[in-house]
Amino acid sequence: MSDHKTSLKPFPNSTRVYIEGSREDIRVPMREIALNPTRLPSGEMEENTPVRVYDTAGPWGDSQFHADVTKGLPEIRAKWVEERGDTETYAGRETKPEDDGYLSAAHAEKAMNRDGRNKLFSFNREGRQPRRAKPGVKSVSQLHYARQGIITPEMEYIAIRENLKRHQLREEALKAPQNQIVSSAEAAGLPNNDLRKQHPGMSFGASIPSEITPEFVRDEVARGRAIIPANINHTELEPMIIGRNFLVKINTNIGNSAVSSSIEEEVEKMRWSVKWGGDTLMDLSTGKNIHQTREWILRNCPVPVGTVPIYQALEKVNGKAEDLTWEIYRDTLIEQAEQGVDYFTIHAGVLLRYIPQTARRMTGIVSRGGSIMAKWCLAHHKENFLYTHWDEICEICAAYDISFSIGDGLRPGSIADANDAAQFGELKTQGELTERAWEFGVQVMNEGPGHVPMHMIQENMEKQLEWCHEAPFYTLGPLTTDVAPGYDHITSGIGAAMIGWYGCAMLCYVTPKEHLGLPDKDDVRDGVITYKIAAHAADLAKGHPAAQYRDNALSKARFEFRWEDQFNLSLDPEKARSFHDETLPAEGAKTAHFCSMCGPNFCSMKITQDVREYAAKQGITEEEALSEGMKAKAKEFAEKGAKVYQ
Amino acid sequence: MSDHKTSLKPFPNSTRVYIEGSREDIRVPMREIALNPTRLPSGEMEENTPVRVYDTAGPWGDSQFHADVTKGLPEIRAKWVEERGDTETYAGRETKPEDDGYLSAAHAEKAMNRDGRNKLFSFNREGRQPRRAKPGVKSVSQLHYARQGIITPEMEYIAIRENLKRHQLREEALKAPQNQIVSSAEAAGLPNNDLRKQHPGMSFGASIPSEITPEFVRDEVARGRAIIPANINHTELEPMIIGRNFLVKINTNIGNSAVSSSIEEEVEKMRWSVKWGGDTLMDLSTGKNIHQTREWILRNCPVPVGTVPIYQALEKVNGKAEDLTWEIYRDTLIEQAEQGVDYFTIHAGVLLRYIPQTARRMTGIVSRGGSIMAKWCLAHHKENFLYTHWDEICEICAAYDISFSIGDGLRPGSIADANDAAQFGELKTQGELTERAWEFGVQVMNEGPGHVPMHMIQENMEKQLEWCHEAPFYTLGPLTTDVAPGYDHITSGIGAAMIGWYGCAMLCYVTPKEHLGLPDKDDVRDGVITYKIAAHAADLAKGHPAAQYRDNALSKARFEFRWEDQFNLSLDPEKARSFHDETLPAEGAKTAHFCSMCGPNFCSMKITQDVREYAAKQGITEEEALSEGMKAKAKEFAEKGAKVYQ
Repeated sequence: MSDHKTSLKPFPNSTRVYIEGSREDIRVPMREIALNPTRLPSGEMEENTPVRVYDTAGPWGDSQFHADVTKGLPEIRAKWVEERGDTETYAGRETKPEDDGYLSAAHAEKAMNRDGRNKLFSFNREGRQPRRAKPGVKSVSQLHYARQGIITPEMEYIAIRENLKRHQLREEALKAPQNQIVSSAEAAGLPNNDLRKQHPGMSFGASIPSEITPEFVRDEVARGRAIIPANINHTELEPMIIGRNFLVKINTNIGNSAVSSSIEEEVEKMRWSVKWGGDTLMDLSTGKNIHQTREWILRNCPVPVGTVPIYQALEKVNGKAEDLTWEIYRDTLIEQAEQGVDYFTIHAGVLLRYIPQTARRMTGIVSRGGSIMAKWCLAHHKENFLYTHWDEICEICAAYDISFSIGDGLRPGSIADANDAAQFGELKTQGELTERAWEFGVQVMNEGPGHVPMHMIQENMEKQLEWCHEAPFYTLGPLTTDVAPGYDHITSGIGAAMIGWYGCAMLCYVTPKEHLGLPDKDDVRDGVITYKIAAHAADLAKGHPAAQYRDNALSKARFEFRWEDQFNLSLDPEKARSFHDETLPAEGAKTAHFCSMCGPNFCSMKITQDVREYAAKQGITEEEALSEGMKAKAKEFAEKGAKVYQ
Repeated sequence: MSDHKTSLKPFPNSTRVYIEGSREDIRVPMREIALNPTRLPSGEMEENTPVRVYDTAGPWGDSQFHADVTKGLPEIRAKWVEERGDTETYAGRETKPEDDGYLSAAHAEKAMNRDGRNKLFSFNREGRQPRRAKPGVKSVSQLHYARQGIITPEMEYIAIRENLKRHQLREEALKAPQNQIVSSAEAAGLPNNDLRKQHPGMSFGASIPSEITPEFVRDEVARGRAIIPANINHTELEPMIIGRNFLVKINTNIGNSAVSSSIEEEVEKMRWSVKWGGDTLMDLSTGKNIHQTREWILRNCPVPVGTVPIYQALEKVNGKAEDLTWEIYRDTLIEQAEQGVDYFTIHAGVLLRYIPQTARRMTGIVSRGGSIMAKWCLAHHKENFLYTHWDEICEICAAYDISFSIGDGLRPGSIADANDAAQFGELKTQGELTERAWEFGVQVMNEGPGHVPMHMIQENMEKQLEWCHEAPFYTLGPLTTDVAPGYDHITSGIGAAMIGWYGCAMLCYVTPKEHLGLPDKDDVRDGVITYKIAAHAADLAKGHPAAQYRDNALSKARFEFRWEDQFNLSLDPEKARSFHDETLPAEGAKTAHFCSMCGPNFCSMKITQDVREYAAKQGITEEEALSEGMKAKAKEFAEKGAKVYQ
């Protein structure tokens, strides 16, 4: 399999299943992991119900899919959008050579030949027109519908998707013979094993119901506490939600930076990200061919795509920030809106008066978008044009249902700069912009830091909730120390897990190459898995009902020495298996009832199992076998045990 | 350089320095990292004071050292121990073939030839006798001296070692010309950059003074809040302290498990661990040659060495837990005490009555020592002999100054089992054992979990502080989710950082191979660095004065595009450099004033620097240049800026 297709390698023992909603075109994908049976002490085999997990891979994770990038993904949302009757198709803006960074079409062709990029061709949009709100329609956003009490197909889709545990339990109940105890359901639900019941009060204000209903989805969106990024022109999208009363999401970044990368690599990187669990994708491309790259990605991407439009606008003025104008920026917004970008990062909170507050910082301004706007503001000594044109930006986004990700251009770039006046000044302005966007019916989340030591993380979350009126928070890490370049997926994974627990709705991944270079595929995988860990750890801590069952299934497999199941249930089955095989490569080792770390005499899991098996053989329960006072049984155990333990 | 010597490769731009104490044989090692000068906007070069960091590598990190393992390390503590006059040398216990797992000397020789281990020979102990407390001397522990108000050389050594920032500032003051502002000292001390001053109240009960004095060290040890693991027979040891009001420490494990590994590899693994920053080392060897392996490690190890003596005792009864006796165990304690083991993990809290509480667990008993003792208890239906013989164990440890690491044999092995009755039952018993050990003048820390979701971590710390009377806590992780085998250094690094912040004194590392196989060198490095990150993040959050200056120095280097300094200041310079070079391998790139991630137009750090440089050229301060109202300046800036920014 070529390196540009490794993302298509299926997960082991996994099949794609779909859960149908109230109408047959609502089909929510999940990955179902088949498990081996448990060998009971009696020698009988007990089936283990397959485990269903949230799946972000889209059609790329379905072995039945055509897998042809030139065809793009099926437009599952086209009918839903059309049915609402509040949008119209239109000719759309004409693509210009400068959209891809060229002075003219001839320049573009020449450059492509020179760069060896002549294989790059345009995605075939034949028969496809952009769509926007009809004249007079104020907003076509999910927020707009939710406020009217409407449950859209997108909302129902999301409710099914977030309700993994309920589906899991239903499957188990269906498969179990009558009157038999359902083992993993029991494990997931046992009073002493359900952490949710044990520690209900530790959720920092998250309030997650035991069942996620379409009504709950709608209400959270209506309240502004959650967003469903879903441009009406990105009909290939599989709806997902970002909000603190749902599963914590992660974002991954790709981009054809000026220094390296090609479009083919970017599309495969997108598939690679969603394969491992990326919930949204930001295309941070700069340089040439931005428009075409984005088109290929959008037509093939099952998750929401975000951009920072100022990057493309800057290319259109040849990299001179001071030459940026509202008109060029506005045109770029329309260009991207018609393509189907689902959310825009807009650094409208970088106000002129905050910029001097960064002068004494250890690391000044570290956000690209923030520094571009700071440069513009200083050069013109004018207020940030994104701020002064905010209402017009809102109107555009409302007409396509593009969500805002209000940028944090003044986020701290070092521990020393955390939680300072510039950062918090901008955060307050983000709150003001949030309220204004809501008036226009636009969905909003807010971006956050950055570099923050552990004891200062909670303050970020609290202030964001307060000042931004509970709009979802979306943070980059935060990195909890500056001393470990090369390991910043870890320095930031720590902060990400914590802020996720505190209520952050989405975590922007960081790869091991952060601060040092551009991530390759291994780095992307390390970054995504680290952030899946952080998000899942946060889901457990928040008590999301669809979290712990996977831990339980994996731990049960581990305890029962079902090695294959342990690998297959893990976030990265390939790595788990290869690590195991480095020490004990033989196939036999994967059915061994001890492992390479301790050897047979020291295996504590084996000893506990021996105790349980002994009890089963004696026809008594473990607790009876073990409980104090049963000296006769204990004596018998000692006598026979010597044989059991050999 | 052969694979068995890669640990000796020096860190780049680093030299070993020693800080002398009140007597000339107190010489505390530090690693000094030389930095490049900063190019000021004026074009002048400003020196950056070298940065000194805590160094655990011992003489192996000193290029002047003979580096001959057969000679062992210098016995820097021999005189200090002797001077106290309360110990005596004696012939010591004779080494037996069964200490190394053989029936007789002939068997041992035969086995070694068969295994190709004939190169293994005994460390030459000629002229070296073990030492113990004189008859009638109750204790020779650091706790014992501290209670009497004595400041030992070990305590003074530690005070110097923990006071990094003070030494750093003194160096900077000495090197700076009169009346000149000391730049990085200023950076470290600027009111708006010193997180310690900003957030004094977030330390969860840790109470760290701004200067660590020998008196403070003594008082913390006397109170039982900190320990100095330092067997009087491990005179090669460079003293260190474990307590929540000091730098958070990390432990690494090595062991020649039954399945693989050789002694030569183990010694190099020890050096490898301390090179990267392991503060203590546990030798968890099982199988053959345990005694000889340990001897080689101890004679060459600059950090405290811990063991779990029950592992060796079990080998002596051929792996049959039910055949263990107090006599065999006691003999093993003496054997290891005479060799110089600094702390013993003893699972004396696994009481018979707690064992039935584990029967319903998801993953039963997962501690090796815990399961061995559970098996023994059940087979005999008797109380744990480690518990019933605790006083005698205390007497032995007091006579050699061996610290206790009271084991948590019933720690949870899965998220589902966290904080349950069995775990907390044992923790209470750990507290009881702690108090009894203190009566005998033995230093104590307590081991803790394990697998614990984030929201249940703090409860562990709080209960340990309360029930174990503030004795230092030493935890394995905890792992915050079970779903990521292959990445458990990360699942646990999250929990480790958090519990370190909450007050945990030492974090036992976890490698990526946890649950899957035996770690190789890369895994050990990943594990150690991850835990150095967790410990450092905790130190920052706790406000330890010797933490933030390194972050500041690195961030300053990053902001000034001093790439070499950024690499050299990081926890893993090799990896940082190699990651950078993958994207931009040319040497020139390391002096470039932008980097590979964004390219020149998008480099936010460059833009901020341009602003500052512009200000310097105009002879005005940045704040003036930037502050509102200076429209003329802004206009000038815009006009000239176009050139500055090209």
